[in-house]
Amino acid sequence: MNAPAPSAPVPVAEVSQLLAPRSVAVIGASEDQTKFGGRLYRMLIKHGYAGTIYPVNPGRESLFGIKTVPSVSATPEAPDMVVMALPRAKVKDEIAAAAARGARGGIIITAKFSDAGPEGAALEAEIVEIARAHGMRLIGPNCLGIISPANRVVLCSSPALDVDALPVGPIGFVSQSGALMATIFDRALEMGVGFSHCVSVGNQADLELCDFVEYLIEDPRTRVICTYIEGIKDPRRFAELARRAREAGKPWLAVKAGRTDAGSRAAFSHTASIAGSHAVLASVCRDENITMLDDTGTMITLAAALARHPDARVETVAVLTTSGGGGALAADAISSGGLKMADFAPATRAALDEHYSPGQGLNPVDFGGRKFDDAADVSKVTAEIVAADPNTDALLYAITTAPMMERLADQLAAGMTDDQGQSRKPAFWVMQPGRAADRARAVLRERGIAFTNHTGEAIDALVAWHARSGFVPRTRPERPAGATVAAPAAGQYDEAASKAILAGYGVPVNESRLVRGADEAATAARELGYPVVMKIVSADIVHKSDVGGVAVGIADDAGAAACYRQIVDRARAAVPTARIDGVSVQTMASGKLEVIVGARRDAQFGPIVVVGAGGVLVELLSDRAIARAPIAAADARRMLESLSVWPVLSGYRGRALAVDAVVDAIVRVSWLAHDLGSQEFELDVNPLIVDVDRCVAVDARLRVGA
Amino acid sequence: MNAPAPSAPVPVAEVSQLLAPRSVAVIGASEDQTKFGGRLYRMLIKHGYAGTIYPVNPGRESLFGIKTVPSVSATPEAPDMVVMALPRAKVKDEIAAAAARGARGGIIITAKFSDAGPEGAALEAEIVEIARAHGMRLIGPNCLGIISPANRVVLCSSPALDVDALPVGPIGFVSQSGALMATIFDRALEMGVGFSHCVSVGNQADLELCDFVEYLIEDPRTRVICTYIEGIKDPRRFAELARRAREAGKPWLAVKAGRTDAGSRAAFSHTASIAGSHAVLASVCRDENITMLDDTGTMITLAAALARHPDARVETVAVLTTSGGGGALAADAISSGGLKMADFAPATRAALDEHYSPGQGLNPVDFGGRKFDDAADVSKVTAEIVAADPNTDALLYAITTAPMMERLADQLAAGMTDDQGQSRKPAFWVMQPGRAADRARAVLRERGIAFTNHTGEAIDALVAWHARSGFVPRTRPERPAGATVAAPAAGQYDEAASKAILAGYGVPVNESRLVRGADEAATAARELGYPVVMKIVSADIVHKSDVGGVAVGIADDAGAAACYRQIVDRARAAVPTARIDGVSVQTMASGKLEVIVGARRDAQFGPIVVVGAGGVLVELLSDRAIARAPIAAADARRMLESLSVWPVLSGYRGRALAVDAVVDAIVRVSWLAHDLGSQEFELDVNPLIVDVDRCVAVDARLRVGA
Repeated sequence: MNAPAPSAPVPVAEVSQLLAPRSVAVIGASEDQTKFGGRLYRMLIKHGYAGTIYPVNPGRESLFGIKTVPSVSATPEAPDMVVMALPRAKVKDEIAAAAARGARGGIIITAKFSDAGPEGAALEAEIVEIARAHGMRLIGPNCLGIISPANRVVLCSSPALDVDALPVGPIGFVSQSGALMATIFDRALEMGVGFSHCVSVGNQADLELCDFVEYLIEDPRTRVICTYIEGIKDPRRFAELARRAREAGKPWLAVKAGRTDAGSRAAFSHTASIAGSHAVLASVCRDENITMLDDTGTMITLAAALARHPDARVETVAVLTTSGGGGALAADAISSGGLKMADFAPATRAALDEHYSPGQGLNPVDFGGRKFDDAADVSKVTAEIVAADPNTDALLYAITTAPMMERLADQLAAGMTDDQGQSRKPAFWVMQPGRAADRARAVLRERGIAFTNHTGEAIDALVAWHARSGFVPRTRPERPAGATVAAPAAGQYDEAASKAILAGYGVPVNESRLVRGADEAATAARELGYPVVMKIVSADIVHKSDVGGVAVGIADDAGAAACYRQIVDRARAAVPTARIDGVSVQTMASGKLEVIVGARRDAQFGPIVVVGAGGVLVELLSDRAIARAPIAAADARRMLESLSVWPVLSGYRGRALAVDAVVDAIVRVSWLAHDLGSQEFELDVNPLIVDVDRCVAVDARLRVGA
Repeated sequence: MNAPAPSAPVPVAEVSQLLAPRSVAVIGASEDQTKFGGRLYRMLIKHGYAGTIYPVNPGRESLFGIKTVPSVSATPEAPDMVVMALPRAKVKDEIAAAAARGARGGIIITAKFSDAGPEGAALEAEIVEIARAHGMRLIGPNCLGIISPANRVVLCSSPALDVDALPVGPIGFVSQSGALMATIFDRALEMGVGFSHCVSVGNQADLELCDFVEYLIEDPRTRVICTYIEGIKDPRRFAELARRAREAGKPWLAVKAGRTDAGSRAAFSHTASIAGSHAVLASVCRDENITMLDDTGTMITLAAALARHPDARVETVAVLTTSGGGGALAADAISSGGLKMADFAPATRAALDEHYSPGQGLNPVDFGGRKFDDAADVSKVTAEIVAADPNTDALLYAITTAPMMERLADQLAAGMTDDQGQSRKPAFWVMQPGRAADRARAVLRERGIAFTNHTGEAIDALVAWHARSGFVPRTRPERPAGATVAAPAAGQYDEAASKAILAGYGVPVNESRLVRGADEAATAARELGYPVVMKIVSADIVHKSDVGGVAVGIADDAGAAACYRQIVDRARAAVPTARIDGVSVQTMASGKLEVIVGARRDAQFGPIVVVGAGGVLVELLSDRAIARAPIAAADARRMLESLSVWPVLSGYRGRALAVDAVVDAIVRVSWLAHDLGSQEFELDVNPLIVDVDRCVAVDARLRVGA
């Protein structure tokens, strides 16, 4: 329902100009602070916009001392930017007028376009067409504008902007939700965190999230990129930008709505974004080291810390606290999150022992355990000692109520800062009290130190940082020898046909014979070697087990012959109309573990491969790894390592299973997926039976085409 | 290292008096606000204490206009309470003097007693003895005193008390951490939440957590009980009080430090509390519906909501929001937490459709989707409609920045309140912005409505409430027929002996014969019926498999005889010095699932039984249910239902397994555990093999005594 995507990405220079317009026409500007146009106009002036402002208001001579123009057509020059929050019915004409006047960009705040159904979507598409015909770019509709502290450009009406000054910071933020942009901006301000630019993209009718992300990658004032995402418009560009962000050394964080069905429905009703498969997007983000988070507060907390130490790896944490109880809870949270409490080096312990009572100079360090009650700067000294500890990757300050908290905060901040005023180590401050800590918070803000009031945000940020630290870029996949380049034609393939295709790609399948009589069954079984498996073959019977059409462990000729008759009889009884093609006699593979390998075409990211535990485990473990196809062996192996069933594969109890063989099978399936990738398709290899020396696909089904 | 536990629980009346003393002697009272005594003295006066104050200060005539006494011995009457934060060396003499003067209670703030090692512990014990000898009760040491808004008694020096007024609320709080008590008090104040009483119990040398919990259960001003716990002093009393709290209709919430090794070590170094097994305590809390939480903010958020609706059950949630993005993220969090987004009843939908654009009157309800921009009271009306929805258990207000937020908050609050000013439904308010929401927060505080600034706290509180809602009290266990009352003597029991004991309790074990020669092995095997299992029997060989001492699937006489020789040879080769008693020939049980049933004596809660998945699953699923022994069948069944392996037991794929038989085995093991309960012991039934019609223990080991 969205307007058509732009044919090519918007050049960064163009976006740069939109975020730093030399002139802005505010349609509907007024002094009335109950109206959008009034509020936005005041904010633009209040925050010191340095360009030319054209308040558009036919009823007034001037507004706040600035001369008005009666219409956008009457501006003395073509404005770089036009902003409007008009009733929906008036938007098209106004955009047409602005485009005709030569405006370079427009922001449409008004909602109820593609977010409100087909009719709104059609109008939205029409407006985009008009603008593009004149080379005018659009932000929105259904957005809340932009806040660019770095450029002193505020084109946003939010009450969050009712502050004296906009702190400029190193975080760029692109949001599909306007309210969340303003809310996070405001919350961040309180946390001592500032932004370079915040952009709310709304329905992304023309300019979209990636256009701004690309700009932020190149913008020297931005060190960390934050995004709130409801749906991706151009998935391949998204992944490509992730690579560029990594190369630029800029961490990219994302909160994505729609990880559940309920959230996905809600996001759709918000900006009409088609969510796509969250699991696939999550796997792409993992592969590209875009850190996905559930919570916006955690995103800001992590972004602020990463801005100072974008390349640091975090696994071990030291806790400094004013409360033994607070320290214990922090230690619990850190350990539960899969991080480690830092084990201080001997020199660190010795240094702490000078200031702390016996047994108290340990991690967590509780200032209450200091040796001398009058040791005023023990907190500063402690922070210095711990920040210098070679075994500590990051610090967590768990601050509870304490006498003279502002002094404490100042000392701790001084202790973690080097002579150049730079932070020595990644650090998270958690200010747990209510207003008792307000003066301490002011001290931190003054020093430009970010904090959160919520332990959970700091812990979640640490956990996410730890996950980022293990990032390995994907290896370039190479087609393995013997993997056919021959995409099967559209159709529904039965087990034998599917396995034949797999075999053509070099995936091991068990041997089988199609037989049409009891004697033939016995002969085939004898040739294959006992025990064998027998399965009914009929295009009309999809669920073979349900009709008694599968038998396993057949041990001799008599059994094979009897089984043939039994299977055919049962199938006939269950589905009298079925055309029965015969019975498949197969070698019975034995193994220690069943694995499922699947592949399909994802609507957003194209061919993907999925691996998980099979058999009884499939229902017990939510065990699934997804990756874009094709995939290299090293990455296929990492997929297996991420499964909870990995301990069985890697042989925690005695012998390891044939991991390399499974990796090879995944790689080969991924190339089949790649070759099928231009069409809809779905492949299930279920199960792939894994033993200590080999693996073999014993059932499979492929569908190509819708 | 703690002082001896009191011989009997302290009567509630006595605790009540300590929290409402008629007179207080403040040792070290001064005007100096850098000193503990000075701060505490000022807070006591500031918050309107109505009793008599005796500032003890030999150097001053009067302090803040109140006449001093030179020493505690010189008070004109025996003070109800004496409070002190003296250097440790002076505490004993001062307690002795106060006790001699007839003081009823004392608070010792001073730390470094049992929390600092054996020498401090000895001094602490001595002090308790002196006090008790005079009938004086002690709070602390290593605590931060008490804050009792309900009694207007503040015996605490924390800067958190530097507020104009102490709001009185329905939450009682007992904390083993003083700093956390003050921090939570302060944070709660900001969240619009007040307390009846807050007590910090420190090292619990005399009065302990349960003394105050028992008081709160009986205190009519307390509706919800919150606790911060590092270690339980009297586990049985703890469990018994949980029952009484339930009977009184008062939810009990607990944050417990030490759920990980790191947290446990930190907690020990804080108040020298022995944590005990966290897993066992967690199971007791689940059994008694004490809601355990990881985070103190979540505890306060949940407590405030429960105080209004202590009996409500919560499973379905409606989200009301000012932001489509915020609503989508809330829906994601609710679904991920195992709750359901409420599916509005037709009448609710119809009512919302009057005010919202088509497709917008759904859960989550985004006020931005309203039909008429000028509908000023749409938020009030929405809250009324949704609060009346029969399919909605609880409301979540996800508030982001919006114009006129204070008006919005006021309307929403009005909408969820009935004519008597009572909240209609459990509701959680999440105020996501920073200072842009401060005026709205003030509106909520004014109306006595609690809020949190963190979505995560509200979600975690909802998840915990949902878990509370499913509570079923434990059934009284009854000894099943045929479960011997005969606790085995101390000793290490081998497989056969352990199984014999199990069989005596009616637990099914597989049949076995001890044989001492190859021919005898074949005869025994034939009599038992093939296939059989054979295992070496030697007290000197603990890990039978490791020496090749186990063989399975022996199919005939020749195999049995050969296997006998092989097993004995292998065992001799591996452990030449081992005394070999023979070989155990056993029926080979087959089944679909292996389960482990264990039992042991927990240091805190006595005999317990543990159930989990066995075999390959044991390493893949963190699958373990714990309960105090003995246990009734209904509760044993609930243990099984809580395991991730339950789908296999209950037959998600075809036939269910013999759940009743497993339940019976657990019950019988639990009675054995009960009968052994006065001693140290450890029993492992591993595995119990479960089939569709029966289960059977095929290996077991019991140790009785240390």
